[in-house]
Amino acid sequence: MGQFSLIGKDIPRNDARAKATGTAIYTDDIKLPGMLYGKILRSPIPHARILNIDVSKALALPGVKCVVTGQDTPKIKYGNWRLFPATQDEYPLAVDKVRFVGDEVAAVAAVDPDTAQEAIDLIQVEYEELPAVFDIESAMKKGAPILHDECPNNVSVTRKIEYGDIRKAFAKADYVRQDTFRVHAVSHAYMEPCSCVAACDLDGRITLWTSTQTPYIIQCLLASTLGMRENDIRVIKPYVGGGFGGKMELRPWEFCAAFMAKKTGRPVKFTLTREEELIAGRRRHPMKLISKVGFKKDGTLVAKDLKIILDGGAYNSMGPTATFLCGNFGAMLYRYPNYRFFGQHVYTNKPPAGAMRGFGAPQSLFAAETQMNMAAEELGIDPIELRIKNAMRPGDKIPDVATVSSCGFIESLEAVAKMSGWKRKRKTLKPGEGIGVACYSFISGGVFNWFNTQYPFSAAEVRVFPDGTAHLLTMASDIGQGSDTVLKQILAEELGLKMEDIRITSADTAITPQADLGTWGSRVTLMAGNAVVDAARKIKEKLFGAISARFNLNVIYDMECKDGRVYAKGRPDRGLSFAEAVAMAQKAQRGEPLVARGYYTPRGKGLVTPAFSFGAQVAHVAVDKETGSVQVKKMWTAHDCGTVINPMAVEGQLQGSVHMGLGYALCEQFVMDKGKTLNDTFLDYKIPSALDMPPGESVCIETYETEGPMGAKEAGEGLVIPTAPAIAEAVYHATGYRCKDLPITPEKILKGMKK
Amino acid sequence: MGQFSLIGKDIPRNDARAKATGTAIYTDDIKLPGMLYGKILRSPIPHARILNIDVSKALALPGVKCVVTGQDTPKIKYGNWRLFPATQDEYPLAVDKVRFVGDEVAAVAAVDPDTAQEAIDLIQVEYEELPAVFDIESAMKKGAPILHDECPNNVSVTRKIEYGDIRKAFAKADYVRQDTFRVHAVSHAYMEPCSCVAACDLDGRITLWTSTQTPYIIQCLLASTLGMRENDIRVIKPYVGGGFGGKMELRPWEFCAAFMAKKTGRPVKFTLTREEELIAGRRRHPMKLISKVGFKKDGTLVAKDLKIILDGGAYNSMGPTATFLCGNFGAMLYRYPNYRFFGQHVYTNKPPAGAMRGFGAPQSLFAAETQMNMAAEELGIDPIELRIKNAMRPGDKIPDVATVSSCGFIESLEAVAKMSGWKRKRKTLKPGEGIGVACYSFISGGVFNWFNTQYPFSAAEVRVFPDGTAHLLTMASDIGQGSDTVLKQILAEELGLKMEDIRITSADTAITPQADLGTWGSRVTLMAGNAVVDAARKIKEKLFGAISARFNLNVIYDMECKDGRVYAKGRPDRGLSFAEAVAMAQKAQRGEPLVARGYYTPRGKGLVTPAFSFGAQVAHVAVDKETGSVQVKKMWTAHDCGTVINPMAVEGQLQGSVHMGLGYALCEQFVMDKGKTLNDTFLDYKIPSALDMPPGESVCIETYETEGPMGAKEAGEGLVIPTAPAIAEAVYHATGYRCKDLPITPEKILKGMKK
Repeated sequence: MGQFSLIGKDIPRNDARAKATGTAIYTDDIKLPGMLYGKILRSPIPHARILNIDVSKALALPGVKCVVTGQDTPKIKYGNWRLFPATQDEYPLAVDKVRFVGDEVAAVAAVDPDTAQEAIDLIQVEYEELPAVFDIESAMKKGAPILHDECPNNVSVTRKIEYGDIRKAFAKADYVRQDTFRVHAVSHAYMEPCSCVAACDLDGRITLWTSTQTPYIIQCLLASTLGMRENDIRVIKPYVGGGFGGKMELRPWEFCAAFMAKKTGRPVKFTLTREEELIAGRRRHPMKLISKVGFKKDGTLVAKDLKIILDGGAYNSMGPTATFLCGNFGAMLYRYPNYRFFGQHVYTNKPPAGAMRGFGAPQSLFAAETQMNMAAEELGIDPIELRIKNAMRPGDKIPDVATVSSCGFIESLEAVAKMSGWKRKRKTLKPGEGIGVACYSFISGGVFNWFNTQYPFSAAEVRVFPDGTAHLLTMASDIGQGSDTVLKQILAEELGLKMEDIRITSADTAITPQADLGTWGSRVTLMAGNAVVDAARKIKEKLFGAISARFNLNVIYDMECKDGRVYAKGRPDRGLSFAEAVAMAQKAQRGEPLVARGYYTPRGKGLVTPAFSFGAQVAHVAVDKETGSVQVKKMWTAHDCGTVINPMAVEGQLQGSVHMGLGYALCEQFVMDKGKTLNDTFLDYKIPSALDMPPGESVCIETYETEGPMGAKEAGEGLVIPTAPAIAEAVYHATGYRCKDLPITPEKILKGMKK
Repeated sequence: MGQFSLIGKDIPRNDARAKATGTAIYTDDIKLPGMLYGKILRSPIPHARILNIDVSKALALPGVKCVVTGQDTPKIKYGNWRLFPATQDEYPLAVDKVRFVGDEVAAVAAVDPDTAQEAIDLIQVEYEELPAVFDIESAMKKGAPILHDECPNNVSVTRKIEYGDIRKAFAKADYVRQDTFRVHAVSHAYMEPCSCVAACDLDGRITLWTSTQTPYIIQCLLASTLGMRENDIRVIKPYVGGGFGGKMELRPWEFCAAFMAKKTGRPVKFTLTREEELIAGRRRHPMKLISKVGFKKDGTLVAKDLKIILDGGAYNSMGPTATFLCGNFGAMLYRYPNYRFFGQHVYTNKPPAGAMRGFGAPQSLFAAETQMNMAAEELGIDPIELRIKNAMRPGDKIPDVATVSSCGFIESLEAVAKMSGWKRKRKTLKPGEGIGVACYSFISGGVFNWFNTQYPFSAAEVRVFPDGTAHLLTMASDIGQGSDTVLKQILAEELGLKMEDIRITSADTAITPQADLGTWGSRVTLMAGNAVVDAARKIKEKLFGAISARFNLNVIYDMECKDGRVYAKGRPDRGLSFAEAVAMAQKAQRGEPLVARGYYTPRGKGLVTPAFSFGAQVAHVAVDKETGSVQVKKMWTAHDCGTVINPMAVEGQLQGSVHMGLGYALCEQFVMDKGKTLNDTFLDYKIPSALDMPPGESVCIETYETEGPMGAKEAGEGLVIPTAPAIAEAVYHATGYRCKDLPITPEKILKGMKK
């Protein structure tokens, strides 16, 4: 690994200057000739039948060019689980019924946003209000109001995992405990609200610029809802100001923009307001988790029985995946010889929950890690030691589900203990201060193919030129996480080029190679990275061939591309500059340019992911005993993301994760009243500010993941997981208040301390 | 040939609706944030040394962001003959000297066009005027002023062709005549003046949108003049409103836009005025042609000795190619067993002549065809019969230069004689009316590679999808001639798809496959078409393989793609829909999409072209004996363009050609005074109006050109050639005035009639 030229270096982000100078074009910056502005009418009622919609006044308003309701549309349901059409439960615009406050009922396109909004206000909807349910318990009661006729008990998805013998194992356990945890909904709070612009050309083809994590998924689902062919839709991802899982599905405004562009022949733009985002945007799943664990006296885990009920809101959205994943995450981190999981996804009349950074793991592992800390205390074992005792190690398997290949978990625990001065601080902190630990494991992309793509999971095209440059084309989507930079780094490393030698074109479904499933599940570095490596190696074979012929080399010679040259390994004189080598290889194919496509699809890697990351985090807090307010004084993190491709980028992911974890732990929550979100601005929805950020120290435990490009695996989402349980444990350590229902508010602490 | 589904059908043009509805985006329609507007300072003097340029006042003008002169630039000369760098004689902005009225001296970029023009007016240039030459005779005199120091006799290119034995042949001839002809400069008069927009990204890469026929050539030459790498330049061709040869070179405004975009960090646009186009734009080469021909008594041609002096204006531009080609065209159409050509390209202090539709042939064949008519009269043989007697036939060779494969020349002559009622009309027309014939042959692209490209001459990428659609990517440039439509037709025919199943992306050097030499020399249908066929056949091989496997077919089965299906030939039940076949072939390669690149480079086809077109035209005119004005009453055309891919498109080419030939023959000319162009607007530069267009009849003599896609060859330029000599002969027939120096003005007719 010492031989890397660019891997492991702090390479500034590809998009840094454009963003810093304000020249980066986000979707809302796009202005097309004749463009119309769209607005959406949303339901003010959590559950109702639509009796009538009168759009005549809206249509009569000067400047209004188009008004559509669900009745005007082809009425085709969509959802990301194409493999199971029954899970596709959402119309772009409500047909017959609305199911949450904010549900999309109608849309307008007008010459300016104010006119569009005025027209929205002129649409008259006659509703027949229906009884509504706002929590899982009510929704699961017999006789509860039913949201979807096809789902008469409001449970839309169930999932079971079981291996070993739970009953026998618990019977033999020395120590068994069962706890119930509740976690809440939070917002992705990406800085850029959702925005899209659709244009329809004279052949009827649609081009959609949209702020999305998943251009290919949008292309497919938009095509199906419009009744069009996939490749008559082109989706282009401009610069994106964050997604965090909230922009990976087709959304009503994307459909409406395309549908109305087709109807009017004029481009249509939608940009959501923050209020709309907070009222009706996707959220992290609230869950109720009932976890039972059993140990031997010496701390050895023997069994776990986990039941999770997910509050999905009004539609499935990404709930089926969440239901699947939270059960998998429940079995991760430690060796559970006997494990059972039962998950249920439940409809309620609230905004749908979707994917959000960590997806299933922040919830599942808040419970698991808190419970681990509780058990450690009762067993009288140091929480870090208890974890090391049970930690997963390289080669561990979860039957039928996953294999752990590289695993630096124990090293992470040891490192974080050392860095934080754990042993000493656990005993010697001032009153009102506390220290706590929590850990995570996360996936490097999903193996599951519920989207039912017929393409490889990731693809890359590499073109090299006799001027010494290369062009990388990939449908992978940089949404701010830095994948364009990382993929360029991987290509530059493989070809021995400099970053500035590489042009990148990404995330345009008509131009970049089919396909890429998008940015989610921390899949991009590993999957798109592997596709880039595959393409680069095909190019190298041609270059090596040309050099071998030119220097008449013995076939046993190994060759390399490095420092802008192509040469026999160990014989740098027998070689040419990269540019010359390309020219020669091109001559060898009578002028045809050197172009190669690379692909990656995980195979033989179980059901979950090709590779797992691991990490541990220690939080040090000070709690004001008068007010109950928590100050996080410092965070220490040690994590294993395989080969670190770009340390600066990984550090950015860590800082962002701590920030997001902080909000999840302490202050972010939706205040709801009968399905209506009351805090719909950033004044009232409290995300931590920069000043709330604790100082931190971190270390990467480098392992080499054989399935990853250059040994890399995920570094983007897992880090968001341990912050909340680590803080919760630190608060307990400081105050004796044990949080089992996030967030950890001052009120709860004060109340808990009094006990 | 009867089996074609789409070839030979009138398919509406791909761009028709966009242009008709005004939604087509031409370069000048592009507006980028922060864009500056450029203007050029041009020399008012035909020949001068630049002593000093003071830009201080221009720079001080508020709103001016950049002023550049030749001294600020890297001073790298350019020209399309990269293989012979000595021919590259042009700087983007004058360094030291100006050589014609209109020569580019400095450029300004400002916040609006008016400010830019005001700044131009504030630039003070101190010139030392030099003696100038305005005609070839003066330029070639001993002691004449020298335009380029490297070229002390003002003759920049000479070219010789010789085969047979001229001297012996003339000695044995029964009838020998020598004539001197002069042809004049005309403007391309494309409706869209040159326009370009350059943007420089934060990595220093340039994107240039430009109204060009040759994106790849612009990319290469712009890179070299800026001292950059080719692939750090991206050239995109928006909709183009005509080129006709006038937009196939790098031009100063393209350099200035890119250079100033790089300097200012802001996009820069240049759009020329019609005045600039007429004063300083490229023109058709004026030539002096001295032609000596010898016949046997029976009309058999025995020898030709042709000397052509080209008036190149101030720079080589496309003059070297013109010098080469007019010598080749002199040997075409008829069997000249003995032939000699001597061509010289001469500098004069006038706007440079460049390529223009027919390129060398309208001049060379005006002389040849007029002389043929003169000889016919003196030999007492009908001009059409004399031509048939000497006509080239399939398989004819020009030693070392060319092979004629398909050739429908005689059939064209016979057809046009029949259509026009030639025999009768030659004898029975009213006084003041006349009828004349002339012919042409033209190339289907050039074999020569003076641009020294390292790539195939044309390339295509075809992607097919399991939704039954295909995507065609090609760098070929539709400049209004309809190549996007024709290439889609060819692909649709090969794959058995409909036009609407195909998306096309063309003419973007960063996206479409390397390379395509551009739109000139009627090369696109044959060369890019062949590349499309090559790519399509690679795709078909995969589809055929999948179907063979699926239906377990005997390996001897032939297969086809037709009517949206892929099946065993003659056994349509053993097949699948195109969409299903793609899905299956994709499964066979584990999800990898079906993508293929095709290429074409002419090999083994001599020095000139892979295929020649032929045709004949008869003009019927009425001359007003009082005023000398000519009314063209009708044109009959018969021509051989191989397989007719799109009859409507060929008819469009014919009508445009007749229009352009009409202007060349009768009314278009530059009025010059000491190097200054006096008629610089369309009020004074007279192109025929729609009302001047004669009715016409035409027929395509279908041959099958084995080197062309589906048997096709050129149909875009050759047709412009015969109109002037046919009209000249008709005028002679009507009046007795024999025109040997175009244009045929009323003054010349009246004067000629008096003799």
